[in-house]
Amino acid sequence: MTQRTLNNNKAIVVFSGGQDSTTCLFWAKAHFEEVALVTFEYGQRHDTEIQVAKQIAKEQQVEHHVLDMSLLSQLTPNALTQHDMDIEEGEDGVPNTFVPARNLLFLSFAGALAYQTNAKHIITGICETDFSGYPDCRDSFIKSMNVTLSLSMDKDFVIHTPLMWLDKKQTWALSDELGVLDYIRYQTLTCYNGIVGEGCGECPACKLRARGLNAYLEEKGAK
Amino acid sequence: MTQRTLNNNKAIVVFSGGQDSTTCLFWAKAHFEEVALVTFEYGQRHDTEIQVAKQIAKEQQVEHHVLDMSLLSQLTPNALTQHDMDIEEGEDGVPNTFVPARNLLFLSFAGALAYQTNAKHIITGICETDFSGYPDCRDSFIKSMNVTLSLSMDKDFVIHTPLMWLDKKQTWALSDELGVLDYIRYQTLTCYNGIVGEGCGECPACKLRARGLNAYLEEKGAK
Repeated sequence: MTQRTLNNNKAIVVFSGGQDSTTCLFWAKAHFEEVALVTFEYGQRHDTEIQVAKQIAKEQQVEHHVLDMSLLSQLTPNALTQHDMDIEEGEDGVPNTFVPARNLLFLSFAGALAYQTNAKHIITGICETDFSGYPDCRDSFIKSMNVTLSLSMDKDFVIHTPLMWLDKKQTWALSDELGVLDYIRYQTLTCYNGIVGEGCGECPACKLRARGLNAYLEEKGAK
Repeated sequence: MTQRTLNNNKAIVVFSGGQDSTTCLFWAKAHFEEVALVTFEYGQRHDTEIQVAKQIAKEQQVEHHVLDMSLLSQLTPNALTQHDMDIEEGEDGVPNTFVPARNLLFLSFAGALAYQTNAKHIITGICETDFSGYPDCRDSFIKSMNVTLSLSMDKDFVIHTPLMWLDKKQTWALSDELGVLDYIRYQTLTCYNGIVGEGCGECPACKLRARGLNAYLEEKGAK
């Protein structure tokens, strides 16, 4: 291993081009001199999502690493079926494209990339409020991951989770504080139907996003 | 996430077809009813190594998952050079194909695979005696990794490292105890020149392996 020293003013943001990770990008820009983005490309993603991520990176003039994670598909029940998944399949209603511990895999790669690009800080929009039964969205996982990552490379990385305890309304409030509410409202992609900005308005992601935004705007207007 | 229960009698062995991981395979067979292997295929590997791993899996009649990890090449200094590695390159003598935290990446994938195939136990030949400056070969890293893995999927995985504190002579002794010294001596691949069994006899890996074997055989003959 090398004797390199990580740059305490540099951060890597795990970035999808959605509302949460774009808020994290601006949070990172407010806190660190140098910010880079990493986007994981894999089968389940809308192509539009990658394009939006690239567009935002370009507009914000930040270094952008797009890593091909297509090998995740090797870990789906479908890909493993020929071996011994036939008993489980469908039994517990798990989709055949489910890959567990996705954040573990993504943060491991983000950590290796941080090391290679000398960044001490890693920012992720992971949020326990969004928990939805995924254990790798929990704060306890992130803290353990931080220790493991640091031990694995003998470097003191810091994982930041600015959205960990925020609900959607509070995330909009944070983007307003950062002066980028409109940018996030019109330039990011959350919609399941791949429509940038305010989206289709019909899918669950659009509804959740709009509810948070409206609640924030109402509260703000009332002040 | 699912309500599945991991099988306490099933183990996944991180497997390369070399002396250490083949010793782990037989150790696992002695301790668990069901054993599966996972081999990571990536650029740096001899093709022979994958073929030897497949051959051993077939002879020992164990399930064998070969995962394509070619994406590791995206994390090498070479691949990242266009961004901001030009200052570091060569400066600290790190090879341009170096990827940090390889065991973190491999164990994350092995963990996700263990979950998908219901195995509670993960076996790796990682060895602090072999440390050589790689922090992700240390026992403290493995223990932290075990906690992180378990938190990430909310399952109590157990990572076993039967070789952690053994030197090469003691690893040969373990294979003799397990009744497979000759199998490992003649069927596994450690040689940098890709020669199965006792190897070329000239490369550092062959010399290290032979020194351990001779030391063990001498000691045994003397008893």
